Amino acid sequence: MTQMEIMTAYKEKMSPIKSTGRKVVVLLSGGMDSTTLVYYMRNLGHEVYPITFDYGQKHSKELTSAERTCKKLELSYKFVEIGLGDIAPSALTRIDIKIPHGNYDEESMKVTVVPNRNMVFLSLATAYAIGIGAEKVAYAAHSGDHAIYADCRPAFIDVMKEAIYLCSDDEVVLNTPFEFIDKVEILKIGQTLGVDYSLTWSCYEGGELACGRCGTCRERLEAFEKVGIEDPISYKE
Amino acid sequence: MTQMEIMTAYKEKMSPIKSTGRKVVVLLSGGMDSTTLVYYMRNLGHEVYPITFDYGQKHSKELTSAERTCKKLELSYKFVEIGLGDIAPSALTRIDIKIPHGNYDEESMKVTVVPNRNMVFLSLATAYAIGIGAEKVAYAAHSGDHAIYADCRPAFIDVMKEAIYLCSDDEVVLNTPFEFIDKVEILKIGQTLGVDYSLTWSCYEGGELACGRCGTCRERLEAFEKVGIEDPISYKE
Repeated sequence: MTQMEIMTAYKEKMSPIKSTGRKVVVLLSGGMDSTTLVYYMRNLGHEVYPITFDYGQKHSKELTSAERTCKKLELSYKFVEIGLGDIAPSALTRIDIKIPHGNYDEESMKVTVVPNRNMVFLSLATAYAIGIGAEKVAYAAHSGDHAIYADCRPAFIDVMKEAIYLCSDDEVVLNTPFEFIDKVEILKIGQTLGVDYSLTWSCYEGGELACGRCGTCRERLEAFEKVGIEDPISYKE
Repeated sequence: MTQMEIMTAYKEKMSPIKSTGRKVVVLLSGGMDSTTLVYYMRNLGHEVYPITFDYGQKHSKELTSAERTCKKLELSYKFVEIGLGDIAPSALTRIDIKIPHGNYDEESMKVTVVPNRNMVFLSLATAYAIGIGAEKVAYAAHSGDHAIYADCRPAFIDVMKEAIYLCSDDEVVLNTPFEFIDKVEILKIGQTLGVDYSLTWSCYEGGELACGRCGTCRERLEAFEKVGIEDPISYKE
């Protein structure tokens, strides 16, 4: 299948439909996956309410990215500060723990796991959803995260779906449309939806330019390479 | 059964055992139930790590109560601020929504529901537990809360047990020993454990003295009356 054929196939599947009038709270980090999810939910005709968490991450540049995407799409934007670094240590929040370079393999990247981050985010997003009367909470867990992040795995997602449904008195449903696809597929979908990836940020380092060497930079670059398009952001090396 | 017989029965069941060396994170609000749970877990020989949340509640007096109990028992104390009132509205956090007076029946008390509060607290407590290597997280959900609080019901607790186990890579277990007993039973247990209830706070109003009229005050007074002992805190009326 050529790139053109893939795009056409996706375009047919993804063509915008009429407004559903449904409110969806989307966990938006400012990275590629969650930004694509915002476009995806919007394209389904939902009213999208992104929620972004400042949990003391070094790569706070992703927060600016999240905000820029919301401005571009004219979406109401919820920003929540939560001191996760103080509650549980991780290389992403503590200056005394270094971000590892190299591949996204299990051992080296383990220090980047923020304990229980997704459950914390999902619980707060659900509180927000109940408050604004949203019918869905969505997050961009994908198959590439399964190995190292326990809170991205299908087994966890399944019980969280039940927990969220129950705690909201059967009113909020958890959606994870990217659960069984990888970053390459997500990027292909994003291409057909016109996602502006120049506004996204992935690098775990807090630098001015993306490092190009940490696990998340490598994963991103690999996805762009596989889809055969150029990453619109600049890299240090 | 006389009060004396009940106390003796509990004392036999509850006699302190040797240290288990296990760390348990206990959600401590500063109220009767969670304070009893701290004593209960301590009495089982566990190292107890209370965690308390300032979520913008009007009755912030309970925070002082939580701290005083921790000081009395010489426990390391974790205090977390989380702006829930800003994320989802409730009578407990918004000055523009009044605390209802009267019985703890479903309709009048519904405004006191803080959307998804327990899932938020449990997710943060689990992050903390993973960070300090604790084996358990415990919270004092009890049968009296089932009717109005979705996040105190057995069905919710069951899935959260699974979710917490999964997201912690099978390392953290959720304990809810009071799940099927009521406040009267909790108070009886507390009596045998020597819980200092003068350091607890229940009233939802933010006053100097407990109002004696809100749902939680009434429920507390009723429990003390049924057990046949005097509530050591003072009331306005």
